[in-house]
Amino acid sequence: MIGIVTWSDIDATERARLLARPAAVGDERLRQSVAEIVQRVRADGDTALRQLTRQLDGVDLENFAVSGDEIEAACSALSADQLDAIDTAISNVRKFHEAQLAAPLAMETTPGVRCERISHPIDAVGLYVPAGTAPLPSAAIMLAVPADIAACPTRILCTPPRADGSADTAVIAAASRAGVRNIYKLGGAQAIAAMAYGTTTIPKVNKIFGPGNAWVTAAKTLVSADADGAAIDMPAGPSEVLVIADAAANAAFVAADLLSQAEHGPDSQVLLLTDSNDLAVAVQREIESQLARLERRNIAAEAIQHSRIVVVANVAAAIDL
Amino acid sequence: MIGIVTWSDIDATERARLLARPAAVGDERLRQSVAEIVQRVRADGDTALRQLTRQLDGVDLENFAVSGDEIEAACSALSADQLDAIDTAISNVRKFHEAQLAAPLAMETTPGVRCERISHPIDAVGLYVPAGTAPLPSAAIMLAVPADIAACPTRILCTPPRADGSADTAVIAAASRAGVRNIYKLGGAQAIAAMAYGTTTIPKVNKIFGPGNAWVTAAKTLVSADADGAAIDMPAGPSEVLVIADAAANAAFVAADLLSQAEHGPDSQVLLLTDSNDLAVAVQREIESQLARLERRNIAAEAIQHSRIVVVANVAAAIDL
Repeated sequence: MIGIVTWSDIDATERARLLARPAAVGDERLRQSVAEIVQRVRADGDTALRQLTRQLDGVDLENFAVSGDEIEAACSALSADQLDAIDTAISNVRKFHEAQLAAPLAMETTPGVRCERISHPIDAVGLYVPAGTAPLPSAAIMLAVPADIAACPTRILCTPPRADGSADTAVIAAASRAGVRNIYKLGGAQAIAAMAYGTTTIPKVNKIFGPGNAWVTAAKTLVSADADGAAIDMPAGPSEVLVIADAAANAAFVAADLLSQAEHGPDSQVLLLTDSNDLAVAVQREIESQLARLERRNIAAEAIQHSRIVVVANVAAAIDL
Repeated sequence: MIGIVTWSDIDATERARLLARPAAVGDERLRQSVAEIVQRVRADGDTALRQLTRQLDGVDLENFAVSGDEIEAACSALSADQLDAIDTAISNVRKFHEAQLAAPLAMETTPGVRCERISHPIDAVGLYVPAGTAPLPSAAIMLAVPADIAACPTRILCTPPRADGSADTAVIAAASRAGVRNIYKLGGAQAIAAMAYGTTTIPKVNKIFGPGNAWVTAAKTLVSADADGAAIDMPAGPSEVLVIADAAANAAFVAADLLSQAEHGPDSQVLLLTDSNDLAVAVQREIESQLARLERRNIAAEAIQHSRIVVVANVAAAIDL
């Protein structure tokens, strides 16, 4: 059960512990293993990718590309409701990102001195979509739609293969409907290395985007530090969310928002700040009841262990905090 | 003398060598020394700063802050023309950067779902302005003006002390006229460490901006990899510039543009692409004649050694290249 603490009741040490963010993962041993994987992919290309995919994903793949037939099959395998949900999400993400397109800027700062700022799409982008314990068609959409709006000429997407050699149907369908034609069944550090350096079958990209586990994050950090590698969006994770809610909030919605991030991983951390004791107790109860119905309840429950509901004096105090 | 090559005359190996960018500096020994400096500043704060400033800048400083009197003296020491030039530069930079202020974005993607993008100024920014072989009031302006437009509440600037314990007058005047009140006489890796971690006298900042030599760059890279350190704009340098010019260009202007970056350091690299043999020869001659009059001619001449004028078939080919 998620703990409730009253901010004014705890001392400085407890406050600091409560606000400590989950540590970014990746110890030295992991970094070493990832460096070896990256090195193997750089040296042996597709051969290394096949060996690593056999060894780490337990599947023999001759060809990593998801074929046109596989894309069609993935879309057919989803219900009309599921495809509708994907299309609605694509449309919403598109609206918000199209509004962010930077207008070209041109001005004369001094007579005869014309200054311009011009945005160019990145030539080649690589999108990574995790699909281990939880496939993320949402991530495919949030990555592919901006790349489509920016009109990046080359857009490829890697997502891990399943034991039967296929990729997640919802991820494939979402990516293809969001405008990605080149999808590869490749996961983990080997996928990042393949996109950063290129192989015979995987094009080299300029920048890699997307979330991932500790291996993926370590590989992204590694290739971005190499001038011959690729730029990255940022090292991702662990997931965090902080909700501020007062007595008028719907406890079920607040609990669902907290659990949506808690279920990302056992190292996720979620916080609720509220000025209402009643809401605190109601959300605590809601989390328990929703947790019981979650597929990923074991993961979320672990994250909830080091998450907290904090009762503060008023909303202004919550914002300060 | 800068070399002229005709693109169609050289083979693939020579082409690759010609387009190879100067390597980012920083070997393992340098990184180790910088790590030690950063560690000393973290552990011993101002005491370490005093020791390092004595050891590396050869000057005993009890107090790093540039006083109000020193700022006034710096402004008085400059001629009216120099102050005018500074104010003109500030006004030009301000115009171009004010036009880049991001407008807040708010929209309803779906009835009831309001999405916003809001820009907040960074709380505390640290600006670094080199002042070793060439003090850079221009850098002070280009760093301080955007921080002023963004209205970052805390803006501090570090620039190396000279042997007499003062800082460069033009840098101080430019920084103060661009809205920076807190200027510190601190240079190199120790300045970066002080801003990243804070000391009794130097406030800790969230993000560090500005160019610097190999020590500064290594320190910025180091503190940005530490979650307790500070973010950075980017690792800067070596300087590069590529000019594309046709027969109508003014050879003296082109030469001046190339030399303005060549003089940054012996590892700078400048390239001119042109479709005109006549312009190539005229620029080559102009570089020789302007170089002879440059204060920093030894540095620029070294950079010119590994710089080139490349003659191509037409401007379209230059752009492709």
